[in-house]
Amino acid sequence: MKAYLDCIPCFMQQALRAGRIATSDQKKIKQILDKTGEMVKSISMQDTPAEIGMHVYRIVRDVTGVNDPYKDIKKQHIKEANSIYAELEKWVEMSDDKLLTAIKIAIAGNVIDMGVNKSFNIIKDIKKTLHQDFGILDYEGFKKQLSKSKSILYIGDNAGESVFDKILIKALKKPVIYAVRSIPIINDVTMEDAIDSGLDKVSELLDSGSEAPGLILSQCSPKFLEIFNNAGLVISKGQGNYEGLSNCNRQVFFLLKAKCAVIAGDLNVQVGDLILKNYK
Amino acid sequence: MKAYLDCIPCFMQQALRAGRIATSDQKKIKQILDKTGEMVKSISMQDTPAEIGMHVYRIVRDVTGVNDPYKDIKKQHIKEANSIYAELEKWVEMSDDKLLTAIKIAIAGNVIDMGVNKSFNIIKDIKKTLHQDFGILDYEGFKKQLSKSKSILYIGDNAGESVFDKILIKALKKPVIYAVRSIPIINDVTMEDAIDSGLDKVSELLDSGSEAPGLILSQCSPKFLEIFNNAGLVISKGQGNYEGLSNCNRQVFFLLKAKCAVIAGDLNVQVGDLILKNYK
Repeated sequence: MKAYLDCIPCFMQQALRAGRIATSDQKKIKQILDKTGEMVKSISMQDTPAEIGMHVYRIVRDVTGVNDPYKDIKKQHIKEANSIYAELEKWVEMSDDKLLTAIKIAIAGNVIDMGVNKSFNIIKDIKKTLHQDFGILDYEGFKKQLSKSKSILYIGDNAGESVFDKILIKALKKPVIYAVRSIPIINDVTMEDAIDSGLDKVSELLDSGSEAPGLILSQCSPKFLEIFNNAGLVISKGQGNYEGLSNCNRQVFFLLKAKCAVIAGDLNVQVGDLILKNYK
Repeated sequence: MKAYLDCIPCFMQQALRAGRIATSDQKKIKQILDKTGEMVKSISMQDTPAEIGMHVYRIVRDVTGVNDPYKDIKKQHIKEANSIYAELEKWVEMSDDKLLTAIKIAIAGNVIDMGVNKSFNIIKDIKKTLHQDFGILDYEGFKKQLSKSKSILYIGDNAGESVFDKILIKALKKPVIYAVRSIPIINDVTMEDAIDSGLDKVSELLDSGSEAPGLILSQCSPKFLEIFNNAGLVISKGQGNYEGLSNCNRQVFFLLKAKCAVIAGDLNVQVGDLILKNYK
């Protein structure tokens, strides 16, 4: 998905939010906004928001010298998600359609997104999501593709949400490769976060090579690209990965909550809608 | 009130909104965002948001060549407000405390603000406002100051809202000078809008000299400043005028709805609160 003009004020908002997490020095935060503002004229509307976002968070790193501002927040989110993991597994076990419940839980985990939401209540939001209808639900297509796939590539999104991905991966009952970001970027899941989330117990972990807050194929490693091109089923979590992959050359199932008006508009759904979209 | 860092993403949002009202040319809108972004580094956090906002709307004018993008919108708002004027006057007549009801109606008109709100329903919002409690209500102080004042300066805010100001001006039962912006800026009330609103029938109209979306004393004419300094009572409507006058050297009664988190924070109230504040 190419960037929309509406993304530009949002980049400024994200720069401010990330700046405040990285430092309390008001002059440095102003400097981050100055540099982000200066960058606007070099933004090409042909780029994806994830590619542009990468530069915003680079500015935050450069100005503050803080490489991973969201480190503590990520650890906290993983801890919180882990603390309710057993309960979530019970919900899946007790449900009539285990796979669909696991999909809903995996999307519910997508409320954990520091790039979009400032605040959320993890348990409350998950329970609400479980009772919510989908804006797009290509479930039959998903089950069909799953049944005939020998290998699954699962592209992770945020740390914390990653714990919920574990629920879905177990419900898939197939070998899964779980791809993570190459460097810390916002609160996106990295190799370390994936291990903290216990994903190494249920999948093979893979560094995608992407340094953006969304998967950018041109940044990915040859190994990732080979797996991406040959996997029977590709599951892409969250908005950032949707931005990067929504015009790619293969079938992808996008699993996300449409959290901003731009993404909702691009998908032709309402803000807040749950999405399981078969992109061919 | 000095600008807060939170105002900076808001300026980008305002630039986008005003750009879209002025033109449908996406390249020009991008150019507006480029120039607004470039301007960020020259923003002094010692300036008021109204002063900075002035530069944003200048960029919109310069890039699009459209001098008054909100012209049609303002005319429409005045027309809508005029269409319910008689009913509002009845509300005042029928109420136990006519002055307080007129104050509430004047604040209710403050929902008409293209700088902050994208959409609103005029009748619905007014009725809601009439039943709302105040976050700050220095009513006794206001009545006392009103009773001992021979001359009142009333600083207008938005076009459309200006029709509601007429209700309050009549309820004040004293000679009023109504100050307007010097040039079209967002949907702020100008001399032409004030006449369209019928304010010339109930007050003496005065061009303040200010070209910002909020009264900036350093821009004001000597005539305005003389009246400002000597008026028995000064009523300042809306957020923009609050930004410009909240650190001035005389008593002002601020009448507004706190529509953004920054203003609400500065006033120590909740977003959405109605305010009648005696600033000394």
